[in-house]
Amino acid sequence: MYSENIEELFERKKITPGNRILLEKGKKRYEGLLIPRINVGDPDIIVLKLDNGYNIGIKHEKGVDIKKLSKGRNIKFESSKKRIRKDDRKPTISILGSGGTIASRVDYNTGAVFPAFSPDDIMMSFPELKEIANVNSKKLFDLFSDDMTPEHWQIIAKDVAKEIKSKSDGIALMHGTDTMHYTAAALSFMLQNTPVPVILVGSQRSSDRGSSDNAMNLVCSAILAAESDIAEVGICMHANTSDDYCFFHQGTKVRKMHTSRRDTFRSINAKPFAKVWYEKRRVEIMRNDYRRRKDGKLKLDVKMNPRVGIIYNHPGMQPSYVERLSEFYDGIVIAATGLGHVSTNPRGDELAKSLVPGLKSLIESGIPVVFAPQTIYGRLNMNVYEAGRILTSIGVIGNGCDWTPETAMVKLMWVLGHTKDMNKVRAMMMKNLAGEISERTEVEEFLA
Amino acid sequence: MYSENIEELFERKKITPGNRILLEKGKKRYEGLLIPRINVGDPDIIVLKLDNGYNIGIKHEKGVDIKKLSKGRNIKFESSKKRIRKDDRKPTISILGSGGTIASRVDYNTGAVFPAFSPDDIMMSFPELKEIANVNSKKLFDLFSDDMTPEHWQIIAKDVAKEIKSKSDGIALMHGTDTMHYTAAALSFMLQNTPVPVILVGSQRSSDRGSSDNAMNLVCSAILAAESDIAEVGICMHANTSDDYCFFHQGTKVRKMHTSRRDTFRSINAKPFAKVWYEKRRVEIMRNDYRRRKDGKLKLDVKMNPRVGIIYNHPGMQPSYVERLSEFYDGIVIAATGLGHVSTNPRGDELAKSLVPGLKSLIESGIPVVFAPQTIYGRLNMNVYEAGRILTSIGVIGNGCDWTPETAMVKLMWVLGHTKDMNKVRAMMMKNLAGEISERTEVEEFLA
Repeated sequence: MYSENIEELFERKKITPGNRILLEKGKKRYEGLLIPRINVGDPDIIVLKLDNGYNIGIKHEKGVDIKKLSKGRNIKFESSKKRIRKDDRKPTISILGSGGTIASRVDYNTGAVFPAFSPDDIMMSFPELKEIANVNSKKLFDLFSDDMTPEHWQIIAKDVAKEIKSKSDGIALMHGTDTMHYTAAALSFMLQNTPVPVILVGSQRSSDRGSSDNAMNLVCSAILAAESDIAEVGICMHANTSDDYCFFHQGTKVRKMHTSRRDTFRSINAKPFAKVWYEKRRVEIMRNDYRRRKDGKLKLDVKMNPRVGIIYNHPGMQPSYVERLSEFYDGIVIAATGLGHVSTNPRGDELAKSLVPGLKSLIESGIPVVFAPQTIYGRLNMNVYEAGRILTSIGVIGNGCDWTPETAMVKLMWVLGHTKDMNKVRAMMMKNLAGEISERTEVEEFLA
Repeated sequence: MYSENIEELFERKKITPGNRILLEKGKKRYEGLLIPRINVGDPDIIVLKLDNGYNIGIKHEKGVDIKKLSKGRNIKFESSKKRIRKDDRKPTISILGSGGTIASRVDYNTGAVFPAFSPDDIMMSFPELKEIANVNSKKLFDLFSDDMTPEHWQIIAKDVAKEIKSKSDGIALMHGTDTMHYTAAALSFMLQNTPVPVILVGSQRSSDRGSSDNAMNLVCSAILAAESDIAEVGICMHANTSDDYCFFHQGTKVRKMHTSRRDTFRSINAKPFAKVWYEKRRVEIMRNDYRRRKDGKLKLDVKMNPRVGIIYNHPGMQPSYVERLSEFYDGIVIAATGLGHVSTNPRGDELAKSLVPGLKSLIESGIPVVFAPQTIYGRLNMNVYEAGRILTSIGVIGNGCDWTPETAMVKLMWVLGHTKDMNKVRAMMMKNLAGEISERTEVEEFLA
């Protein structure tokens, strides 16, 4: 229910949810379908679904004029309490909520964004989802993704597995964008051989902003979950600055690359699996090397050791710091410079500070040291320079790999959840488990 | 001198350096000008300058056939011992050598790349430099850039300042690429108000590979040093996969973005200052907001506190680790997720681990905590989400900034070389000193 004032106004003007209305505020005109209010946030914000699929919230205050244009579309706005009737001709997908901007509103008192919606609320705001599939929805947490931990990944993986076992045709997980690629990598290792698509989806702008990307991202991920044959874990988000299509990125080969843009997620050293066209509701495959639906049986394996950190190599890195990392971590990923380097000082420069003794002592004490490219793009090659050769010879893991530091970290956490034996760790790390190590590098994958 | 065998062969065929020769090896044919051998590496490698400007090294062994085609160009190959006569009509530039791939050769026994050339050797290999300017050259170090430290930056800055004081028209510093952007940022803060261009240049492929980028990068940086009016510190490297032009990137807004590509350096949240066309020997300006030649008087200021580290925020980051960073560092740069976040756990989730107490205790003990975007691209905005507001309220520095983690680290080292007072540190950090904080963000600067 909106505020008493607004509800009275609606009654007087015979406006009900679903009607097409015109809202004028000064010189601005907004036309769209009235969305019923969800029981959070400011009850004086009227929410319209614009023709481009966006929902916009407009504060009803002095000077705002509302007019009913037509009956609008016959959309069923079911309350979150009611059971939604199942349409047996449609696939059934699961929408899980873990928080993030996609499930948020702006607090108009402070201007800050806070988590607000449950998956059911989202269903009510985006009734077009029901046209795509039957939707089972469940709220797992209400977290901004910066607060996510490896323990949350384990809970999510188990819940996704539950949905898969209940014969869901695909899962969309609403998630904050900041660490979405970490969670995507974690689910890639935990949910091996998933028989259906597992799609992480978020938004960069909250739902009551005109430019919110939640509708398109959510609809595209629902299409993927319901209809695509890509049985992989990945991220579905805006592909560019227009509202044409989303990309479905491989969960182990994707990274948030911009603080604020809607097309912030980018495939790294890989192509996206697919484009998902928003208006056309169509999946366009971009790669052939994906697992098909029902190719296999899900293997849920959530064991993890979270005591792994990413260390960012840089000039001035102190050897004493590196040596003491054993006090904090059971495994280290170093975002190494160039083709996989840190200071090794092979020529004995007086000022250089080799990290070799420190890394060697970490490795000898059973702490695996894994390298990943600080450049983000490209592949490590530790055969070219003396530094790389020295580092390989002391047992640094990662030569030839093109994983991101984030994916390398998540993989090392997962591997260390299974073994402490250095040889086994090395073998598991260097084996491609979830597409995290590409076989080939293609030119057009750089900054694409 | 080449090996005795080769020198005999040359004598017999009347071949001298500068002659155009044809070298056949199996089905491969190489045509170019003979370059005299430098006294390092394998004496059986014959070096040719190809028509595209590249030098290539071909091992003289069984099955290699050499033919003299013509006298070639009349190039003066002066030995590094001889004084080079000055041409008063030309500008005089300085080429300083600090090592790196640009000054390296492949060791054909092991396949590894090792530093080999002095700037004089480079002059001998690239006689076209003398057509652009009189060149004073000096070798500072022979380091791969992974071994560089803040102390090396100080030495480099002083040497550059010396050249500027000796009326050099521009300085090109040959440098390894791995940490070149760190050095570029450091020189940007240390050499304020430089009256001439200061250009860092390197190569991604060593000089005896067919695809080496050293000739074009070096020639383009010499053109910038000799002719451009851009009195800024920056990086001059290949702009794309073809051999058309280099970019001149701003020293505080550039980053190595690929492990192996020749166009690895990319301007981040900024446009390059200029294109430098290789064949046309021409500088094409791309921005207007640069300092012009001789606008000011150089202010050399190399004071630095190197006890600054980059901490990469990630799920699973342990609060106890953050608290103890004071044992290693006098200042911290956090590569923060999203718009400038770490875990703050505002809603008291049971599993989340807030870093707020740890960061607060660091700041209270006088250790500045500066945020930079882990996404690399984009600007921090710590007003949007609750996490950002909490972090700003405890004194985290960086809200609104669009610097890279690397530049933020170098700046914090420099600022902490000047004051320990937290208020002064904050004021200096938030003031744009060397273009490190852009006023505006432009759409086309993302992944360009």
